[in-house]
Amino acid sequence: MLRLQGEMVRGGTSKCWIFDHQDVVATGVDIDTLLLAAFNAADPRQIDGVGGASSTTSKAAIVRASAEPGVDVEYTFAQVGVGDERVEWTSNCGNCATAVALYALHRGLVPITSETTTVRMINANTGARLTGTIPTPGLVPPDEGTAVVPGTSALGVPVLLGFQDPAGSTTGRALPTGRPLDTLAGRDGPVEASLVDSGAPVALFDAKAFGLDGNESVAEFAAVVPVLTALRRQAALAMGLAGPDDPVGHAVPKVGIVGPPAGYRTTHGMPVDQDEYDLAVRMVSMHAPHPAIGLTSAIALATAVAMPGTLAHRVARPTADGTLRLGTPAGVISARAVPAPDGASPTVLLHRAARRIARAELLVPAPEGHPE
Amino acid sequence: MLRLQGEMVRGGTSKCWIFDHQDVVATGVDIDTLLLAAFNAADPRQIDGVGGASSTTSKAAIVRASAEPGVDVEYTFAQVGVGDERVEWTSNCGNCATAVALYALHRGLVPITSETTTVRMINANTGARLTGTIPTPGLVPPDEGTAVVPGTSALGVPVLLGFQDPAGSTTGRALPTGRPLDTLAGRDGPVEASLVDSGAPVALFDAKAFGLDGNESVAEFAAVVPVLTALRRQAALAMGLAGPDDPVGHAVPKVGIVGPPAGYRTTHGMPVDQDEYDLAVRMVSMHAPHPAIGLTSAIALATAVAMPGTLAHRVARPTADGTLRLGTPAGVISARAVPAPDGASPTVLLHRAARRIARAELLVPAPEGHPE
Repeated sequence: MLRLQGEMVRGGTSKCWIFDHQDVVATGVDIDTLLLAAFNAADPRQIDGVGGASSTTSKAAIVRASAEPGVDVEYTFAQVGVGDERVEWTSNCGNCATAVALYALHRGLVPITSETTTVRMINANTGARLTGTIPTPGLVPPDEGTAVVPGTSALGVPVLLGFQDPAGSTTGRALPTGRPLDTLAGRDGPVEASLVDSGAPVALFDAKAFGLDGNESVAEFAAVVPVLTALRRQAALAMGLAGPDDPVGHAVPKVGIVGPPAGYRTTHGMPVDQDEYDLAVRMVSMHAPHPAIGLTSAIALATAVAMPGTLAHRVARPTADGTLRLGTPAGVISARAVPAPDGASPTVLLHRAARRIARAELLVPAPEGHPE
Repeated sequence: MLRLQGEMVRGGTSKCWIFDHQDVVATGVDIDTLLLAAFNAADPRQIDGVGGASSTTSKAAIVRASAEPGVDVEYTFAQVGVGDERVEWTSNCGNCATAVALYALHRGLVPITSETTTVRMINANTGARLTGTIPTPGLVPPDEGTAVVPGTSALGVPVLLGFQDPAGSTTGRALPTGRPLDTLAGRDGPVEASLVDSGAPVALFDAKAFGLDGNESVAEFAAVVPVLTALRRQAALAMGLAGPDDPVGHAVPKVGIVGPPAGYRTTHGMPVDQDEYDLAVRMVSMHAPHPAIGLTSAIALATAVAMPGTLAHRVARPTADGTLRLGTPAGVISARAVPAPDGASPTVLLHRAARRIARAELLVPAPEGHPE
């Protein structure tokens, strides 16, 4: 049985297991094999491992100190399979980044010299640069706080998560086609789309084009998900994310609809008034409605709203100070764009929360033939 | 934030968090409050806690050394709510008992003096006495083994789990009505039932009474679950488990159907031949088909089969050596009855497996107003 130190940390609405790169190397086992065994990925119930048997609770991050100037830590995000012996390494996860920031503070990877500490991170999967700013009163890393995020009533340490220079993170351009508005060939005719690359590549559609308002319940939105996933392929081709002969992917770009603010109820039944937010959004996660919104998609929306001509700019309530309040099925999530120096695109800030749940030594079944 | 040491241990097809009684007391918080917070029971996704968001992965056991002669450890089983801020303390769990036996060995609660060690346990919820016998070659507690149980392909340490003198564990009598066969008033007329109390109170029906064979798929069996749960109330009254004015319970007695052995396929598609088992059984878990069978129900079946006149005795293949092979949706589970001294009912033995998954320090949000 292999031994592996790890911490279970909630970041926003995800539960992430965080490991130190050195501890992973010390096992002598390749990381895919190690994570698949530790989580019991083969089992849809993950009954023999530390995984939580759902996509939001079957995540890991491997962290190390960075040698790069201006960067404190580097993390690699792993989406570990549930009933599927595969680890996906292709995307970033904003929720896990939030958890990594709190973990890094507690592990002493960042010196605490004032009442607020910023952890500067680089995501190794995508090259994205992020910051996590955490209150450190008394110069000690905090274990508790009263910050909440839509999607859970649990309290946590407040983490101000910043995505630095997010525009063009995948393709090099905020608008990969060079246009704020494109027309894709839908099943029932042409459909307008704004194809944006910021945080992650995202294809946005006007809710009205599908007879919707953008503030529907998850169940109502589910009806148009097949149409949107069909359009995803064309968006990928237009954005240069896939070639005509590539296999059809289901993760890139992210797709969703936007609409003007209007009163609605969250999945938990809480009323949200028209004045409480600026843009209604319903995103697709793989093949199903996203219960809230992925943080990287929130970044793309903040970028899109700031660009005249995009669908998001067209339907959103104009905001003065760069704060965009997104109305999602789980509630309102705010993203604030602040100007950056040196020609970089605006940094986008999100208020998130994290909590360390457990510090553990995992006992991991060694792969066959592996000397322990 | 409170600190609590714990171990995540798989027992059979359940994942149990096991805590030392002293560690629980040291927190100064009542155990219900502590478990609800540690597991994040309020959230159906248990995103801010160590729970696995399903009934089989939201379990805990609190263990202490026993002062009673002939007993090594006492454990209390807790079924922690999922999206429900309640802890149920009314039942025993055989899978967690398996996990407790392995935990007790590693914690040094039982001296290891030979190549096989038996942990003698008492379940504080029900008063049941159990034994867990584990190979201890080299006089060290094992961390790995090659034992498997139906319902998971994971390997574990073999644990021979014994239920001692199980008959009449709740009511004092193996046949609470004094008869091996009773007649209950079903919706469409009288229905024969064998009401047995061994391991747990169980009401058994003949599959044929519902037009079934007893070896149906979980989906096919689901069709008769409402009829069986309706009969549960009458069985509870007949067994003296509830009075006419008591609220309707959904956990007691356990209900299910039995049939003669015949070829079928497991939920995972593996064929099971008629000769590979002795009695077909499909049990209800609360309001849904059980994916396999609860271990305490397996005990009741082993007892019932040994008593002439019961439905189980009538349809099961006669077995010579006291080993009863139960055909469940997940596969075949064997229970062996061995004579006990001093007029006690036969001990029933089950081959199970356990594995320690992680040793952890949990960080548990303190209840409001609680001094840390």
